Order: sequence, then structure tokens, then C-alpha cells
Amino acid sequence: MHHLHVFWLEIVFILLAVVAIGYSFSNFTNVKRIFIGRPLRTKELHAQHTKLFWLIALPILSADLYSSVAYGPEAGMTELAGLGASAKWFILPITVSTILLLAILIVSYIMGVIAYPSGGGAYAIAKDNFKKPFPSLLASSSLLVDYVLTVAVSVSAAVEAVSSAYPVVAPFETIIAIVCVCLLVVINLRGIAESAKVFAWPTFVFMGCMLLLIAAGFLFEFRHGFTQASTPPIGTVPQGLSTLLILKAFSSACSALTGIETISNAVPVFREPQQKSAIKTYIALGVITAITLFGFAYHLYIQGITPDPHNTMLSQLAEVYYGHGLLYQILIWSTFIVLILAANSTFTGFSQLAAIVAADGFLPRALTNRGDRLGYSNGIFVLAGLAILLIIAFRAHTNALIPLYAIGVFLSFTVAQIGLLRRWRRVKGTKWRVKFVINLIGSIITALVAVIFAFTKFVDGAWVVLIVLPLIIVLSLMIKRHYTQVASELKIDPKETRPVAHRIITIVLISGVHRVVNNTMSFAKSFSNETIAVYVGFDDESIDKMEQKWEDWGNPCRLVVLRSSYRSILEPITRFIQTLEKWEGGAPDHIHLVVPQFIPKKWWHNILHNQNALLLRAWFFRNKNVIITTVPYRLTK
Amino acid sequence: MHHLHVFWLEIVFILLAVVAIGYSFSNFTNVKRIFIGRPLRTKELHAQHTKLFWLIALPILSADLYSSVAYGPEAGMTELAGLGASAKWFILPITVSTILLLAILIVSYIMGVIAYPSGGGAYAIAKDNFKKPFPSLLASSSLLVDYVLTVAVSVSAAVEAVSSAYPVVAPFETIIAIVCVCLLVVINLRGIAESAKVFAWPTFVFMGCMLLLIAAGFLFEFRHGFTQASTPPIGTVPQGLSTLLILKAFSSACSALTGIETISNAVPVFREPQQKSAIKTYIALGVITAITLFGFAYHLYIQGITPDPHNTMLSQLAEVYYGHGLLYQILIWSTFIVLILAANSTFTGFSQLAAIVAADGFLPRALTNRGDRLGYSNGIFVLAGLAILLIIAFRAHTNALIPLYAIGVFLSFTVAQIGLLRRWRRVKGTKWRVKFVINLIGSIITALVAVIFAFTKFVDGAWVVLIVLPLIIVLSLMIKRHYTQVASELKIDPKETRPVAHRIITIVLISGVHRVVNNTMSFAKSFSNETIAVYVGFDDESIDKMEQKWEDWGNPCRLVVLRSSYRSILEPITRFIQTLEKWEGGAPDHIHLVVPQFIPKKWWHNILHNQNALLLRAWFFRNKNVIITTVPYRLTK
Repeated sequence: MHHLHVFWLEIVFILLAVVAIGYSFSNFTNVKRIFIGRPLRTKELHAQHTKLFWLIALPILSADLYSSVAYGPEAGMTELAGLGASAKWFILPITVSTILLLAILIVSYIMGVIAYPSGGGAYAIAKDNFKKPFPSLLASSSLLVDYVLTVAVSVSAAVEAVSSAYPVVAPFETIIAIVCVCLLVVINLRGIAESAKVFAWPTFVFMGCMLLLIAAGFLFEFRHGFTQASTPPIGTVPQGLSTLLILKAFSSACSALTGIETISNAVPVFREPQQKSAIKTYIALGVITAITLFGFAYHLYIQGITPDPHNTMLSQLAEVYYGHGLLYQILIWSTFIVLILAANSTFTGFSQLAAIVAADGFLPRALTNRGDRLGYSNGIFVLAGLAILLIIAFRAHTNALIPLYAIGVFLSFTVAQIGLLRRWRRVKGTKWRVKFVINLIGSIITALVAVIFAFTKFVDGAWVVLIVLPLIIVLSLMIKRHYTQVASELKIDPKETRPVAHRIITIVLISGVHRVVNNTMSFAKSFSNETIAVYVGFDDESIDKMEQKWEDWGNPCRLVVLRSSYRSILEPITRFIQTLEKWEGGAPDHIHLVVPQFIPKKWWHNILHNQNALLLRAWFFRNKNVIITTVPYRLTK
Repeated sequence: MHHLHVFWLEIVFILLAVVAIGYSFSNFTNVKRIFIGRPLRTKELHAQHTKLFWLIALPILSADLYSSVAYGPEAGMTELAGLGASAKWFILPITVSTILLLAILIVSYIMGVIAYPSGGGAYAIAKDNFKKPFPSLLASSSLLVDYVLTVAVSVSAAVEAVSSAYPVVAPFETIIAIVCVCLLVVINLRGIAESAKVFAWPTFVFMGCMLLLIAAGFLFEFRHGFTQASTPPIGTVPQGLSTLLILKAFSSACSALTGIETISNAVPVFREPQQKSAIKTYIALGVITAITLFGFAYHLYIQGITPDPHNTMLSQLAEVYYGHGLLYQILIWSTFIVLILAANSTFTGFSQLAAIVAADGFLPRALTNRGDRLGYSNGIFVLAGLAILLIIAFRAHTNALIPLYAIGVFLSFTVAQIGLLRRWRRVKGTKWRVKFVINLIGSIITALVAVIFAFTKFVDGAWVVLIVLPLIIVLSLMIKRHYTQVASELKIDPKETRPVAHRIITIVLISGVHRVVNNTMSFAKSFSNETIAVYVGFDDESIDKMEQKWEDWGNPCRLVVLRSSYRSILEPITRFIQTLEKWEGGAPDHIHLVVPQFIPKKWWHNILHNQNALLLRAWFFRNKNVIITTVPYRLTK
């Protein structure tokens, strides 16, 4: 009987949910005010951004990049886990290569800031430097896909960090991750500005914790000797190692490099001199990230830590140095907050990029609408929906997704740098040859890395990216074509095409003689048009009755009675309209259908009344060129 | 990486489903024709019923009752399973009591047929004999709840029968059960008449198989001795036995008695003399069911068979006598078909009863609508939806539900018999005292059984029925009150209240000067009304541009420009309408809002265009007393 009780609990839960949703709908505005806050004027848009000192901007703009440190090395080592202990030392060369790549990317992006001081992501750079839309669409599609993956991965990683410390929450990871995404939606609909200084502190705390952890490591090793019992031997080549496997591990580790583009998009946020501040921030971020990555990897190596699906490597290392004390707790929770912040900044990134691309006509225009609090609400919902789908599909274990998004990142890096190359050649300017060479090297390396990723991860899911990206690009081009066609179809010459009066026949649908019909007939009578009342009867009895009633009512207008043998209302009306349209010598320009609609006092009363008005509208909209008027009648009971 | 592939398969599946649904919508009529068939005229309603000879009517009308034989004894013995082998012999006294109850019920129902030769279920009998609606609503609610339970239980039992024979399908029971329900929906929407003779044969085959099985058992016992090694000792009182437990087992076994009312509802289906045929059928059915129940229970006892959740008792017994040969296969498949037929006849029962109750105003009126093939489509959908919910909630293991529906059945039996009592006292007629006494005894016993069920199964779920039934009754009364109130509110005196012309102000919403707006303005110009064009602008630039364009267009009518600082379209229009409504000296009787609506060529293009027209309609319908006209404009590209 156990099942039975569970079932009735579910029923109760569903009923409560229905009541809650019903209440929310009937008081939608109030509920919205509580969660989202008062609406903002469009003019307040520019007042929001207080300019930031670069040292404060650093943590705010780096949550995405710096937080990846928490999972990058782990993602790399997971690839080599099958090789056993003798492969552990590979964490060092792999991390060093990652840091080299980081240096190249930071230098390349500084070039981007120099070229576009007003801020410009890969899409903007590509749009500015290529005539054809393909490169910019490639950049935008890969970034959009990556943003979705980033939210799924960051939120899942955040939840995993907490469940490493508290295994009791492990069974609820998926639901907690979904709740986190929903909270991010509310936060982003409220539109707390990306530049809110309050976001600086968790990242600072996390940076401090990471550096302290590394320092604690060195202190520990100073006291316990630099080689430990658990330190794996260096330089041995484990059985089964292949170039492919090393490249795979490297690709996964490079997931630590996502989020570099954030600063270059946000140059206007800096205090003057903006360009110099942005460059300073890039350099500082590069140095801190490099130190952290290397120190973290080094201690992981010294302690011989291996990936464990139930305990992140960061958590394992912290346990070695800190035990389960306060410092450990601070580290775990700041990891959680920083990873959530990384997902949060992605929301701004996604919705802004989607809005820019949509404004150019390559995505549905609805993505350009600003909500009550000036955020691009539709973009926020789309991102959250897709991320939640991924989280559910992978049960919040998104490690498998990490390699996928490195491809997108490096594709967009490459497109942006090739765009810069074209720009330097066109614009020239001081030392343009130096800049050209820097971006040339950068573009070759990022292209190479993208190819390596696509190749090594092909069977593990990269093929999906290589199918999805072209698909999005083709869809974008189709959308653009549709908008262009519609615009040309709708265009008129205002001097020539002007509104003129038409001949219109008004048809009033009636179901009897009662107050609602009286109301509707009164409306129809207020016009000078030809009006016909139409009644659809299912049997002789009701038809005779109706004709008699109409007579008693003093024949307010001509009554046409349609017999419906098949009990359909749509079918006889459709036929009648066709007859009118083909009426020789007297066909009207437009047919105008007037339908009474009954509005009950409580929304759930709707289930008690037929929804013919809605049905008719839906049907005639799809099938006939008919103008439809609904005359509401509000019930008082 | 396993997860990843599963996930992409899901995505592909969802995409295919979306395409299929999209295609179905765009070709809805065609798809519907294939599955449902051509629509039928209302007049064909009575032509459908070919009158049946009673021997053919017997299997058709008894699928529900007779099929329960397959699970009734098992449900009873499952209750005693905890007591071990020494309780096995209780199957005999429990089955005998069930058969006695069957006899009483059949006699009582024959009284019903005598009283209402034109057919009358518990609801009709109660409605005819009680002034207050409570007894008839009690009967209808318990029958409706039971119909839902019957579909869930019969379909699940059918699938379990097959998975006893083929354990390989066991993991898919839920999905197979849901597919079966969906097939039943299609069959019932097609409306194959309940009286189709083709439905007679599976039940005949099943009856034959059951009787053959019982005969085979006696043959087996004749050859192997009437007491076997596995035959449990009789008369021992097992440890832990209580009156409560025996009553529980008895209640569960009584689930074999559901479906007796079918024949009394269907008297008009019989060939003349209808009454006598129906009575003959009742007697024949009673005899066959009693023989089957007793024979089946006897052999179960002799073979010492115990309930096994993975192998039904029927299947176990058949294995003993037939092995896994052809006879076993025929038995299993005819069990499957008969149980599905039982669910099928329930569809007719539910939708007809719901339609009758709805016609009296106690349920939503939509339940009285006949579909294309004259079935009550809405009732069919409601029943299928609820049954599927139950099947999912119980993962197609609906044994826990069996005791629940005995309560409903016996409640409605009791109501019907008390109704008959009142009728006999009122109408009198020949031998009315005899009939009175029969129904008196019947009603006392059924009431007693209902109380026993409610009591013994209280914690196991009967409390749910005792909450749900009053809830449905209260809802029914509220629905009735609503309909009565609305009817009185809508009523007018046709001599006094007549349609009169009103003063109407027409507001045309425009978004610019283009072909769609031109079309809409032309429509508005065709009337003699006051027309105001309204434009909502988000910033000065677009407002200035609009005013200039309007000038260039030759000022087709007065233009009002509303500035929306909060980017809302609804809010400024609402304020404007409020201003008009309060306009001193010039307030119109009605405000008429004309909205252009853009209809793209492909339905999925809708995602590329804003749906302001829909939004406006929904909003103003809820919030303002405004007449809304949508002027469609069909894109050609």
C-alpha cells in the first residue's frame, strides 16, 4: 500500500501547485512585483552603469574565467584516469601548456581592446571586418552555444562542490541545480547590474582562498618534505598512453580558459582611461590565473590526488591541508558562489549577444525586447530553459559537456583574431605590423587548438557541436531572409497607397435570444453596415424555436439559419462565408464576423462554458480571410 | 560518455515529435480522418444500434463483469498472503460468499430491469425516485470514479496477463498500458458501436477457455486424485487471522462483481421481447460467472496456488494443466483481449453517464458534445487522461486500486435499490410487495458490504474515496448553481429588451505605415464611426518619425501618440482607454479596439513575429470592457 500514499501525496502536491499557479495568474502583477521589483524607465538604462576602478572590475569580470580553475585541471586528469597512478605526473606538462595558451589568448585579446576601445566581442569584430555574414554568425552561434553550456556546467560544478562537502545533498543535485538556475533567472530579471560592486567580494574571497591554499601547500611541503609518499614518480610513460589521449586531456584542461572574452566586451564599464584599465586588468587576471593554475596543479601532483566523481579534486586537496575546519568551509562555499556568479555573468552575456544578433535580423526579434527591469527577458528565459534541459539530461553531471564548449570558445577566438588581422591590414596605424603578427600567431594557435579539440573529442560529442553550429547558422540565415522578404512585402509608398473605405458584410453569430446576444446585436447595429445574424442549429426543433424567438424579438436584422448535420459549427459557417465570397455582383471586400464572448467572473468558470469564440477565431484565422470581432459580456455571478 | 549519446537520441526524438505534431496540426483534418474516420450525421445515431439476440448480447455486455473473474479471487488471496500456506483454503469460503452476493445483486438488478424496461442505471433510477439531487449525484459520482478505476485496473491486468506469459515485456508494462488506453481512445472516437457483434467472440472464447480450464482441472484431478501434495489442509485457523483480515479479503474478492449494471443500462439493445431477453441474459450470466468463480477457486485451492506479483494465479493454474502450449497461449491472449474489451465498454459507460449528468447541469456542458463519430469525445478524453494518470502513478500495478472501486460499486448499487424501494411503494403494481422485499434485502446487504469495505480498507485508501466522492458531489452542486445563476442573468424579455445602436469610439493600433496598417485602416474607414489611430512609442526618435510618416500619409484620421517609458504596450493603452471612458460629456457606450494581425505563411514563422495582437486580446479581455477586432493580414512569403 506504500505506493498508494505516495500517489495521493502527489495529487495533493499537484492540486496545491494548480491553486498557486491559478492565484499567481489572477494576481500576476503583484507576484511579479515581489520577485522582479518595480519596472524601470528606458531612460534609467544608462544611469545604471557606475564606472569601475580596474581593481574592482577585475573580480567582477573574471568570475567566469577564474572559476573555471576549479574544474579545468580535474577535467584534464579525468581523461587520463584510466592509465593509473603512473600518469598522474602529466598534470604538470598539461597545466603548463594550458598556461602558455592562456598567455597567448590574453595578448590577443589585449589587441582586441586596442582595436575596439568601446568594447567588442567576437561577433562585433567579425561583423566589422567581414562583408559576408558567415564569420560573424559562426562567432555568435558558437558563443551562444557556449553560454548555454557554461550555465549548465558552472551550476552543476557549484552543486558538486557543495555535495563533495555534504554528501547528504548528493541525491538532490539535479533539483538543486535547477533551483539555482531559476534563482539566476529571477536575479537577472530583476537586473542587478553586472557592475554591482557587491559581486566583487565573493570572487576576491575565492581568489584569496585559492592563493592561501597554494601557500598552505608550500608551507606543508616545506615542513613535510617536497616529495611525499603519495607523490607519483615523474617522467614514467604509462602503458596505453597515446598522443590522442594527451591531446584529449589537454583539450579538457583548456576548459579552464573559457570566459576570457568578458573583459573585452565590457570596456565601457571601466573608469577612465578605459583602454589602459582594461589592459591592466587583463594582465593582472592572466598573472593570477596562471599562478593559481600552476600552484593548484603542482600540489595536486605532490599529493598524488586522483579524480573522484564524489569528491572534487579541489575539495580533496583542501581536506589534506585544512581538514574539515572553517577554512575548508569558506573555500567550498566561495567556490559555490563564484561558480554561480560565473553562470550569472553568462546570463548577461547571452541575452545581450542574442539581442545584438536579433537586432541584425538573424534571430527572432522577440530577443530584443527589454523587460520591466531593462534586461532582455526572452533571452534570459531561453538560456535558462536550454541550460535546465542539459542539467536534467545529464542529471547535473555535466563533465561530459566540458570538452564540448572548448570547441566553441576557440572557434570564436579564431574568428575574432582573423577579423583583427583584416582590420590591421585595412586600418594600419602605429606598429600595425607588430599587432598583425601577434594576432596571426594567436589565430593560428587558436585555430589549431579548435581543430585538435574537434578531432580528439569527435566521438565523445564534438560531432554534436559540428552539427549544431552549422544548423544554427543556416537557421539564422533563413530567419534573416524571412525578415527581409516580409519587410519588402509590407513596404508601401505613402503617397500612393492610402486607406479607402470597403464594402463589408457583418455576420453576427447568435446562439439564442439572451442578454449576451442583445449586447452583441447592439454593437453590430451601431454601424451602418449590412448585418446578417447567423444561427447554427443541430436539429429541426431547435431551428424552429430559434426562428420563432427571432420573430418575437421583432426581427432585429436578417436571420440566416444553417443546419449542421455533423454538429460542427465551423463547417456550415465556412460554407456560408464561401457563398458570400462568391456571390456574383455583390461579393463584399471583407467579411466581418462578430462573435459574442462570455467572460465568467472566475477564470476557472471557463471550463463550464463552451469556448466557441476562441475556436472560431483560431479556425478562421488559419483558414479564411475574415475579420473577427469578439464582443465581451462579463458575467456578474 | 554513455549519457551523452542517450541525450542526443532524446533530442532527436523530441525534434521528430515536434515535426510530427507540427505536421499533424497543419494537416489536422487529414490525420483525423485516417484515425477517426469520416464524420457521421446526427441522424445516423439511431441507425447504429442493430438489435441483438440475447445470446449474442450476453458476451458483449458481460466483458466487464466476466473479465473480473480473472483478477477477483487473486485480489482476495493477496490480502491473506501474509498468513502463509495454512490460509490458502480460505479461498473457498470467500469465493462462496462472493457468489452468494452475486446472486443477490443479479436478482436486485433484474428488479431494476422490470422497473425501467427502457434502460436505467443507478443515476437514472435515483433521479426518478428522489427529489433532492444528492442520491443521484452520489450514484453518478461513485460510478464515474469507478469507471476511471476500471479502465486503469482492467488495462493493467490485461498487460500483467501478457507479461506473466512473456516476462520480457515486464519492464515496459506502464508504457504498453498507456498505449492500450490511447488505442481505446481512438477506437472510441471512431465509435465502433458497443453492440458490434465482433466483440462477442473474444468473450465467448475467454468463457470457453475458462470453462475448459475448469473441466481440464477436474479431468486432471480425476486422474491424479482429488487431493494433491500441494493441496493445503482445510479448516486450520492460521496464526494472525482476524475478522478484519477475512473481511478485507472478502472486499477485495468482490472486485470480481463490478460491471453488473451494464446489462440494465442496455435494455434497448436487445431484440424483442426486450425485458425478457435482458432477464434471461442476467440469469445466464449469473450462472456462468458463478460456475467459473467456483471452479477457478476450487482448482486454485487444490493446486495450492499462491499469488505471485510476476505471474497471475490464472497463468499459474493454466501452466499446471496446459504447460506453455497453444491452449495456454489462447487463454492468455483471450484474457488480454477480454480485459481490454472490459475497459472499452467502460469508455461508453463513462462518456454516456457523464453526458447525462452534464445535460442535467451537474458537470461541465462540454461533456454533452458529440464528436464527429457521435461519441462523447470530451468524456472519452477525460476518462483516458485520468486512467493514464493512475496507471503512471501506480506503474501499471493497480492491485492497490482494486479494493477502492468496490466501495463505489456498492454505494451505487445501494442508491439504486433504495430508489427502487421508493418506486415500488409509489407505483405499486403486481406483486410489488415481493419486489419490495427483494430490493429491501438487496439494499441492506449492499449497504452493509459498502460499509464493510469502507471500514476494512479505510487506511489502505478507502479514505481517499470517502474524500473524493463528497468533493465531486459538492463540485457538482456548485456547477449546477453556477449554470442556474448564469441562465437567470442572461434571460431577457424579448418584447422589452431589444438591440439599439450605441455610440462607439474605434481605436486602431498602428505600429508604423505599411501594408498591414493600410489594410486595417481601410477596414476602420469603412464604418461611420469616430476613429482614432493610436501609436505607442518607446522613445522620442521613433515618435517623431511616426508623426512625420502620418503627415506624409495624408493624415487618414486623428493620430494619438502615447509615450511608454516602461516599454509596455498594454499600460499606456489601458490609461488612454480609461481617459476615454471618463471623458466628461463625451464618453462612448463602447470602446472598440482594432488590432492588425499578421499571419505568416508557415505556422512556425510565428516565433519570428511579436504576438502583440494575442497579448492585447488576452489582457483586455481580463481587465477591460473593450470590444476587440483583429484584422488579419496574410503574408505571401
